[in-house]
Amino acid sequence: GFAQLDHHRTLRNGFPEVVLGQGKQPEQVAAIVCRLAEHSDKVLVTRVDQAMADIVCTEMPDVVYKSLPRLLVLDRSKPIEKIPGILVVTAGTADMPVAEEAAVTAELMNNSVERMYDVGVAGIHRLLGQVENLWRARVIIVVAGMDGALPSVIGGLVSVPVIAVPTSVGYGASFNGLAPLLTMLNSCAAGVGVVNIDNGFGAAVLASRINQSGQ
Amino acid sequence: GFAQLDHHRTLRNGFPEVVLGQGKQPEQVAAIVCRLAEHSDKVLVTRVDQAMADIVCTEMPDVVYKSLPRLLVLDRSKPIEKIPGILVVTAGTADMPVAEEAAVTAELMNNSVERMYDVGVAGIHRLLGQVENLWRARVIIVVAGMDGALPSVIGGLVSVPVIAVPTSVGYGASFNGLAPLLTMLNSCAAGVGVVNIDNGFGAAVLASRINQSGQ
Amino acid sequence: GFAQLDHHRTLRNGFPEVVLGQGKQPEQVAAIVCRLAEHSDKVLVTRVDQAMADIVCTEMPDVVYKSLPRLLVLDRSKPIEKIPGILVVTAGTADMPVAEEAAVTAELMNNSVERMYDVGVAGIHRLLGQVENLWRARVIIVVAGMDGALPSVIGGLVSVPVIAVPTSVGYGASFNGLAPLLTMLNSCAAGVGVVNIDNGFGAAVLASRINQSGQ
Amino acid sequence: GFAQLDHHRTLRNGFPEVVLGQGKQPEQVAAIVCRLAEHSDKVLVTRVDQAMADIVCTEMPDVVYKSLPRLLVLDRSKPIEKIPGILVVTAGTADMPVAEEAAVTAELMNNSVERMYDVGVAGIHRLLGQVENLWRARVIIVVAGMDGALPSVIGGLVSVPVIAVPTSVGYGASFNGLAPLLTMLNSCAAGVGVVNIDNGFGAAVLASRINQSGQ
Amino acid sequence: GFAQLDHHRTLRNGFPEVVLGQGKQPEQVAAIVCRLAEHSDKVLVTRVDQAMADIVCTEMPDVVYKSLPRLLVLDRSKPIEKIPGILVVTAGTADMPVAEEAAVTAELMNNSVERMYDVGVAGIHRLLGQVENLWRARVIIVVAGMDGALPSVIGGLVSVPVIAVPTSVGYGASFNGLAPLLTMLNSCAAGVGVVNIDNGFGAAVLASRINQSGQ
Amino acid sequence: GFAQLDHHRTLRNGFPEVVLGQGKQPEQVAAIVCRLAEHSDKVLVTRVDQAMADIVCTEMPDVVYKSLPRLLVLDRSKPIEKIPGILVVTAGTADMPVAEEAAVTAELMNNSVERMYDVGVAGIHRLLGQVENLWRARVIIVVAGMDGALPSVIGGLVSVPVIAVPTSVGYGASFNGLAPLLTMLNSCAAGVGVVNIDNGFGAAVLASRINQSGQ
Amino acid sequence: GFAQLDHHRTLRNGFPEVVLGQGKQPEQVAAIVCRLAEHSDKVLVTRVDQAMADIVCTEMPDVVYKSLPRLLVLDRSKPIEKIPGILVVTAGTADMPVAEEAAVTAELMNNSVERMYDVGVAGIHRLLGQVENLWRARVIIVVAGMDGALPSVIGGLVSVPVIAVPTSVGYGASFNGLAPLLTMLNSCAAGVGVVNIDNGFGAAVLASRINQSGQ
Amino acid sequence: GFAQLDHHRTLRNGFPEVVLGQGKQPEQVAAIVCRLAEHSDKVLVTRVDQAMADIVCTEMPDVVYKSLPRLLVLDRSKPIEKIPGILVVTAGTADMPVAEEAAVTAELMNNSVERMYDVGVAGIHRLLGQVENLWRARVIIVVAGMDGALPSVIGGLVSVPVIAVPTSVGYGASFNGLAPLLTMLNSCAAGVGVVNIDNGFGAAVLASRINQSGQ
Ligand SMILES: Nc1ncnc2c1ncn2[C@@H]1O[C@H](COP(=O)(O)O)[C@@H](O)[C@H]1O
Ligand SMILES: Nc1ncnc2c1ncn2[C@@H]1O[C@H](COP(=O)(O)O)[C@@H](O)[C@H]1O
Ligand SMILES: Nc1ncnc2c1ncn2[C@@H]1O[C@H](COP(=O)(O)O)[C@@H](O)[C@H]1O
Ligand SMILES: Nc1ncnc2c1ncn2[C@@H]1O[C@H](COP(=O)(O)O)[C@@H](O)[C@H]1O
Ligand SMILES: [Mg+2]
Ligand SMILES: [Mg+2]
Ligand SMILES: [Mg+2]
Ligand SMILES: [Mg+2]
Ligand SMILES: [Mg+2]
Ligand SMILES: [Mg+2]
Ligand SMILES: [Mg+2]
Ligand SMILES: [Mg+2]
Repeated sequence: GFAQLDHHRTLRNGFPEVVLGQGKQPEQVAAIVCRLAEHSDKVLVTRVDQAMADIVCTEMPDVVYKSLPRLLVLDRSKPIEKIPGILVVTAGTADMPVAEEAAVTAELMNNSVERMYDVGVAGIHRLLGQVENLWRARVIIVVAGMDGALPSVIGGLVSVPVIAVPTSVGYGASFNGLAPLLTMLNSCAAGVGVVNIDNGFGAAVLASRINQSGQ
Repeated sequence: GFAQLDHHRTLRNGFPEVVLGQGKQPEQVAAIVCRLAEHSDKVLVTRVDQAMADIVCTEMPDVVYKSLPRLLVLDRSKPIEKIPGILVVTAGTADMPVAEEAAVTAELMNNSVERMYDVGVAGIHRLLGQVENLWRARVIIVVAGMDGALPSVIGGLVSVPVIAVPTSVGYGASFNGLAPLLTMLNSCAAGVGVVNIDNGFGAAVLASRINQSGQ
Repeated sequence: GFAQLDHHRTLRNGFPEVVLGQGKQPEQVAAIVCRLAEHSDKVLVTRVDQAMADIVCTEMPDVVYKSLPRLLVLDRSKPIEKIPGILVVTAGTADMPVAEEAAVTAELMNNSVERMYDVGVAGIHRLLGQVENLWRARVIIVVAGMDGALPSVIGGLVSVPVIAVPTSVGYGASFNGLAPLLTMLNSCAAGVGVVNIDNGFGAAVLASRINQSGQ
Repeated sequence: GFAQLDHHRTLRNGFPEVVLGQGKQPEQVAAIVCRLAEHSDKVLVTRVDQAMADIVCTEMPDVVYKSLPRLLVLDRSKPIEKIPGILVVTAGTADMPVAEEAAVTAELMNNSVERMYDVGVAGIHRLLGQVENLWRARVIIVVAGMDGALPSVIGGLVSVPVIAVPTSVGYGASFNGLAPLLTMLNSCAAGVGVVNIDNGFGAAVLASRINQSGQ
Repeated sequence: GFAQLDHHRTLRNGFPEVVLGQGKQPEQVAAIVCRLAEHSDKVLVTRVDQAMADIVCTEMPDVVYKSLPRLLVLDRSKPIEKIPGILVVTAGTADMPVAEEAAVTAELMNNSVERMYDVGVAGIHRLLGQVENLWRARVIIVVAGMDGALPSVIGGLVSVPVIAVPTSVGYGASFNGLAPLLTMLNSCAAGVGVVNIDNGFGAAVLASRINQSGQ
Repeated sequence: GFAQLDHHRTLRNGFPEVVLGQGKQPEQVAAIVCRLAEHSDKVLVTRVDQAMADIVCTEMPDVVYKSLPRLLVLDRSKPIEKIPGILVVTAGTADMPVAEEAAVTAELMNNSVERMYDVGVAGIHRLLGQVENLWRARVIIVVAGMDGALPSVIGGLVSVPVIAVPTSVGYGASFNGLAPLLTMLNSCAAGVGVVNIDNGFGAAVLASRINQSGQ
Repeated sequence: GFAQLDHHRTLRNGFPEVVLGQGKQPEQVAAIVCRLAEHSDKVLVTRVDQAMADIVCTEMPDVVYKSLPRLLVLDRSKPIEKIPGILVVTAGTADMPVAEEAAVTAELMNNSVERMYDVGVAGIHRLLGQVENLWRARVIIVVAGMDGALPSVIGGLVSVPVIAVPTSVGYGASFNGLAPLLTMLNSCAAGVGVVNIDNGFGAAVLASRINQSGQ
Repeated sequence: GFAQLDHHRTLRNGFPEVVLGQGKQPEQVAAIVCRLAEHSDKVLVTRVDQAMADIVCTEMPDVVYKSLPRLLVLDRSKPIEKIPGILVVTAGTADMPVAEEAAVTAELMNNSVERMYDVGVAGIHRLLGQVENLWRARVIIVVAGMDGALPSVIGGLVSVPVIAVPTSVGYGASFNGLAPLLTMLNSCAAGVGVVNIDNGFGAAVLASRINQSGQ
């Protein structure tokens, strides 16, 4: 096989290797999913378009494609109790695909996930009216494009870790997510860790590690 | 003379030419101030350091140097009633030099100015507790470095024009003010106009034009 | 519903929430427009392509699509007298879509709008021949791509607020509008506020607030 | 007073407001420290040079200046048992000031901190020989300049959260820390959250929140 | 002819002119290949898509198109013994097209090439388990996208020249390969030379010159 | 009409207004060409694709479309003697579209143009073998992508003005022409003026003004 | 000697090698000036600070230091008639050092130079009132910082070549001259060639070649 | 000790760990040099200023400071025959410090080094007149700032590996070496590997590995 699969990753990192779909050929992805499924009861592929999904699902009928977050999910694990504690927040409606990438990934990693969407700072009462929900969380993922201001505001309201995800939502001087990325790195509220632009997946892995910390 | 002073600027723009001190030689600035003072009862020089101020003030003893905003001010005008309506807000204490550049400039242009400093979004109750002061203003200048998130929040709370001034306060990925500049240009609240990094002077000119609009 | 609509926005900001069409699914936009129309007699969606417009207009037949500025407009309000004072200027013909986004938005916000198009600095007599029109305005929106030089020239000719809108018109070292954006932020004429690249909408909101200031 | 201190920050965020020393005047910092010390038994000022430290320590003799991490620390709290779990790793010796900013901050926040310095990837056996120390940690702060490759390697070896801190150590195409910042945001190992360049303080706050999560 | 072919290039550089297919018209490329083939028994065209390949291969039936590395190859030379010594390594599966561009080019230049693919630092045991293969090489080409960390690790393990090839694999803050490019230029292991993003061809030329050095 | 055509441009600038086709609608361009043709016997439109050309040529049958340089040309002028002196040089074959944009524009402006294509520095004998042709010119336009090194070499060989045109030919770290643009601005040979990336048109206007200087 | 002086440069380029003072040691510069003076009756060193000037002038007493343009000039040539035709224009007073670098260089190259300083677009009547002076020139050098808008305006008023020199005058989003550099490259008036930021010298060489073209 | 010295580096990489002086405290460097000298008969510290050199040399009198390349060198090894083959070329005199960093490093690594300085492309006959010297080399290091064009020219003249070192020599749009860095990465001559800006040391390590390849 061309790919050198990392079958020990569950041992080291607590979850099997996740496949980045984008930039691979559908056939490659199908082959990789098959081989991973031989060693693990969960397989996740990210950044998958419909055409790739169709080819993989034809080969592996129990793989599910979630079109909004563009994820391929295979889950043959036995249902277990999920660990509560992760809250996913978005500034706008257009940030939902990235937020759902985070939420679905975190759920697959045995966390139960709360969602609070479309509460950006242009109408800050939407957030302040739900501040108890913020306080209930053990870790908060905040997804925002354009000005990326939401993590700073939330970071100032809570004492739990905040994971900031800049998105490419916006245009012009957002420079495909550079603007919210810089905003978040310069957050005047401390306790905020930043992941790559549109990287809901990475945010979920970090949140899951935090949420399951000490378990 | 080397400089071609624009003595009609008051006619066209409502205020005499303002001198950018930085990058000029102190002797040049002193000479320009003298010549401007022959035609106008107010002279303003921006971005002036102490050494330049000393030389100019020696030649023109009624010129006043304000060290925090680094302004040289000559004001021989008759006291008149100032026009209320401009509020200057800052996110942090370190933004005060830029804020004062704006406030002093606006006052010299016959506006009375309110100040609300150090109310950044990391402790948003500081802002929300004074929201009536926001609502009293006719135009609001918001000065912020680091994440530059404050104009978006204020823009969402008011229906008057907001002028956002990014500052070079911060370090690392603030890239000398690029981060808050991009934040402000991408503000998810509309009605926000942005000026150059650290340009309190320009914000004041714009605010003054707005505040005196229709007078 | 997925989106948390901000129905108080008219109270706080003087106009209902405006929808950014780009990056949303047509069905989402149609649903949002319906819900907004229940609370407000005006709805505006920006950055809409023809395909999205077709789907929304099928569901809401009294929504109008303006293809040049790419706006969806629903206006069930009673005709009232518009407030004069806003002038929209462009440097070139290719800047018209952004200029019209500004003009139509401002008109929907009860302003009457003058237009002065294609008067860029390469043929400056075109502008200087109409300088009285500049002087009649209470606020001027200047839309320019490429070198973005026009706001500096206009800013030097008037004493009213100038709102500069950089456009992505150009190629090469315009870097999709970065060049005129930087030009406008560094305007040697003071009193110029800048909005995001191609953001005619934001310019109109700011202009409308200025134009209706004190009313 | 000029600064609007946020005395509720301990309630909301679990620690009093931390002062960014850089960009403030020494007298301002001394005044702020005094006022904060009236409400809290711990005060922290970051990015302080020797001259500022001298002035503050003259006024407040029980404030301690740590010159390597450039921190001013006031700690009048009763000694309590520190919570173990935080490991601070550096790639090189020159990353130590940032690492110590993180370590001292985390200790002040009641964490006990392990250190593993100078184990960069150019000599990877130095890291691999201590992998058990990595596995003992509950959260790992990784500080690296130049290529910033260390967090990716560590992220692949552990199942706990990794906080990556890019430093400005390097020259040329490091562009003052931009290179390791981008490296870390693109880490091929998931579970890595990034903070601002040279921001040891922010990394410590995030690590402390994670380490004390669930307590 | 429009193109001024450089028929002495074999004399000066040891290999005939290689054609950059991208940005040329298929007919131009076909004509150039014909003319080059009159002077040389090997012709190579890089960055060729399927449509261009079809047109060229129709005219020159013994030209072979390799779709993964997007190369057109004409090889009428007599088989000779290849010189061993070049190893091509990739961090991920998605880096294979660039790696194959390097490998096929190097083979055409009379080198035999070893491949070690998908051994990125997120699972570093995959690399360490094959360290003898690294030590057997005389020159190593390392191809990596995203964080681009692999060349630093390999550079620290060997005493032969390392050629680092950043790829555009990744998204967001990879900025189309800028992130791994900067990483590689800042490698904390010395002895690493960097070529352009996605430039497998250039890496192969450099590797071939090194491998045949002294022959 | 929407466009405010600048019919005095010939008087001021020596040539009628040239239309930038890109970013306009084909119908707009057709209308503008018609109106310009009423005042001038030459009309030029730049950056025109085939679809726009078809629409314009249908309306104005004596307009000619040159597909390589993507120019629409109407020339009803009486043939006159062209002024010799302009030489257009390219580094590679792929730079020809930009070079032809320059050459055709200069010819329309009554210059006769020499061409020397594909003489880039990778095979510098191609240039040195024709150095007499360089010395015959009165002004030289040098078009190059990738490293953009050719203008520096030519600038060092001649005593006439050199106009450097960076092109977007290349990939990766050429960043769409940024690399050769910076190279040319930093030319170690003096006497080189630079125009925008891919701006063959602008280079021709400048060259024509120089070539006809003193006539 | 360490430096390989290019004594044929007058033959090829019409003027002896000019020395870039910055980045060299004063002793190196003194030695180079001596050696150049043996072959040529004119020597020019650019970007020289006072300390370097003192050392060189001590060794070579007939070398003259011009402190505003920071030039060292040795001129032992016989006075000859200068060729008129070059006009140097600046936007502001702070652009004068760069403008004088251009003017003095051009004069040394046997051109007589007109100056028109401080006529930036913020007060455009200052320029328009002297438009006849523009029309008298054979080539115009336009020096501007901040928005860099002046070359576009002048380019639209004349039919001679315009050389645009961006300066580092400004702050914030001028990014040390990047803003006016991009403005000038995107000039909406054609016929403008751009040189490096603050490169008055290079502008003069180009202008001199143009001015003496055909002589 | 604070630093974890990598005493196996000679085994793995063929040379002991080299210390980056910049960013460390002089006392740290002195201590590191002492400890390294216990295990190795050669020690090298790069990017050292005079103050650091004085402190280290006081402690270790047989350490030699070379001020031009800013290197500290300890060499207690027995003289052996150096391996010929490395040529170091510079474009200008100001590139000499970086070139000497490369040359001295390579010599310490048992290579004998030829130098060819100040042969930049503005006077290309200086290079072409010595082309036999190029052909004698087994590997060529080319050091250039400003336009960075020299490696492309040399790369086209030889069939051996070329290592390109961009320098920060220049100003304005050189952006501290970014311009020549991009030029070199986009070299139209293949077979060129690039190292970090001003990284003469890294170039020497790579050159030495190539030069001693197969020994
Ligand atoms: N080194 C640091 N890096 C980032 N933020 C900091 C640092 N030190 C303090 N802060 C934060 O910066 C803010 C300081 O704002 P101010 O002191 O009002 O200018 C506080 O909210 C701190 O939490
Ligand atoms: N290819 C081109 N590159 C740069 N400028 C151009 C080009 N073609 C036309 N122009 C100029 O762009 C301006 C066109 O503006 P407009 O047609 O009003 O949008 C004119 O002033 C032309 O001189
Ligand atoms: N993939 C590639 N990357 C970089 N350079 C290339 C590539 N393919 C060919 N070249 C070089 O690019 C030049 C092509 O120039 P031209 O074909 O005249 O446009 C030749 O000198 C080749 O050595
Ligand atoms: N702090 C400032 N920021 C931006 N523009 C300024 C500032 N101070 C003065 N100016 C403007 O800069 C121009 C100064 O140009 P000059 O004094 O001729 O170099 C004037 O037109 C002022 O309106
Ligand atoms: Mg919303
Ligand atoms: Mg504060
Ligand atoms: Mg036009
Ligand atoms: Mg070390
Ligand atoms: Mg893999
Ligand atoms: Mg070619
Ligand atoms: Mg002035
Ligand atoms: Mg030289």
